[in-house]
Amino acid sequence: MLDLKTYLSRRARLVEEALERLLPAEDEFPASLYRAMRYSIFAGGKRLRPALVLASTEAVGGSLHDAMNTACAFECVHTYSLIHDDLPAMDNDDLRRGMPTCHKAFGEATAILAGDALLTIAFEMVADSPVADKERLLRVVKELAHAAGCMGMIKGQALDMEAEGIEELSFPLIEDIHIHKTGALITSSVRCGAIIGGADTPTLEHLTEYGHSIGLAFQIMDDILDVEGSEEEMGKKVGSDDRNKKATYPALMGIGESKRLATELVERAMSALSTLDERAEPLRALARFIVERKC
Amino acid sequence: MLDLKTYLSRRARLVEEALERLLPAEDEFPASLYRAMRYSIFAGGKRLRPALVLASTEAVGGSLHDAMNTACAFECVHTYSLIHDDLPAMDNDDLRRGMPTCHKAFGEATAILAGDALLTIAFEMVADSPVADKERLLRVVKELAHAAGCMGMIKGQALDMEAEGIEELSFPLIEDIHIHKTGALITSSVRCGAIIGGADTPTLEHLTEYGHSIGLAFQIMDDILDVEGSEEEMGKKVGSDDRNKKATYPALMGIGESKRLATELVERAMSALSTLDERAEPLRALARFIVERKC
Repeated sequence: MLDLKTYLSRRARLVEEALERLLPAEDEFPASLYRAMRYSIFAGGKRLRPALVLASTEAVGGSLHDAMNTACAFECVHTYSLIHDDLPAMDNDDLRRGMPTCHKAFGEATAILAGDALLTIAFEMVADSPVADKERLLRVVKELAHAAGCMGMIKGQALDMEAEGIEELSFPLIEDIHIHKTGALITSSVRCGAIIGGADTPTLEHLTEYGHSIGLAFQIMDDILDVEGSEEEMGKKVGSDDRNKKATYPALMGIGESKRLATELVERAMSALSTLDERAEPLRALARFIVERKC
Repeated sequence: MLDLKTYLSRRARLVEEALERLLPAEDEFPASLYRAMRYSIFAGGKRLRPALVLASTEAVGGSLHDAMNTACAFECVHTYSLIHDDLPAMDNDDLRRGMPTCHKAFGEATAILAGDALLTIAFEMVADSPVADKERLLRVVKELAHAAGCMGMIKGQALDMEAEGIEELSFPLIEDIHIHKTGALITSSVRCGAIIGGADTPTLEHLTEYGHSIGLAFQIMDDILDVEGSEEEMGKKVGSDDRNKKATYPALMGIGESKRLATELVERAMSALSTLDERAEPLRALARFIVERKC
């Protein structure tokens, strides 16, 4: 069995080396913009989305080299969404991964621009990929924009905001929020890796099912960790969902039932990979990681 | 000679019909997000950037049909930049085109998301264009991302913010701000129309020169109108550059010299089109419009 910790940290290093090369240098003018972009990108995330892009490409026989720009693009989109979600007008968070949030460190205006810039550069990275088949790259642009946009991640954030303050949250509404807010980008990272690797239609469908399942499992675990996790391990205040009356699984169905659901989703993800060979081992390990993680 | 007013209003109608079709419906859930996107897009701009995309495609023998999604994409990027620039943390403007700004009408959080969503959907529109040559579309994605991003428009906005409060603004700094803040997207709209139309390299270079010149001329006229224009015609408070100690041409070289420079730039733009035939008439008329406009 794959040693996931070593695997993830090696992949994270590869992705960080590529981001180092793809992002503008810190000392260029206007320095604060470029510093803010790098500050948030290099704040030490798990690099889960890029790992999924790369693992998915490998699972269908594609090359890491072809998929690296797209992997970096997903990390840029993810980081932009964190910067904007943390803004005072949104979730108003001061800490992220144990460090001051972007607007706390650089001011609100620069944080807004740094988020905008990371979102924008993501599409440039995809379009600039060293991939001969331009049609595949164009599909990735379309998938990424759709998953990140007003029918995907942004819709999820808007739903989440509208749901705050609703006293009786229904299960379908919570699921709708999560499928869009985190699920869309996670599913898309799996799909885009497969598209770059040249997956055929049935395989792409299996991987989409895998992506849906781990995306939802990931968010449920996030909600659970907000209740059970330690502030030290999480690098941010825990219990904030409860204080903010956020729509979460534990609030609706309790911790035990939420854990059971997450485990069931990961099993479903594993089944979706049943027709794939040993090259899908990293995807299997990533699915396990999602329910076993502590932060 | 082309009747520019009729031409522009016909083009604006075509673009607005396409945007109507390409943007999510207002009554979908979460309604406030989709309403905010449409509110800002349909607030009645001049649709200059889409007009440039379409005119440039036509000038090189391309079809309006092929270029329409890209034209709409430029309008979405332009509108997103206005929404975010107007935010309290940025320019803090209450009025835009005679109407409350997006955050005044929908709140700050929704305005941030609506801007993010318009930026994101722009790339989906390009990728979704009914154009057979996918390589051209991928070039447009790359060009648009570069022009809108942290080496283009966002850099210009960041420079502008850093320049506020500097007592002695130099000509090179003002030019640097303008080339990035408005020039990059205008130049790119001309280039992308030409790329979709299949322009050869020398023609693309001429059109780039045209774009550079009208982009800078446009910004100089904007600065002049902020001093000389009427609030009624502009639909916003005038004189705000002076109050905010913004870096402008009139502040540095006076109104007369600024007008002379704008006229010279439009002449340079006309020369750049000298090898193009009568299909470039709309581009010529658009260049004239830039120095003759009253709002």
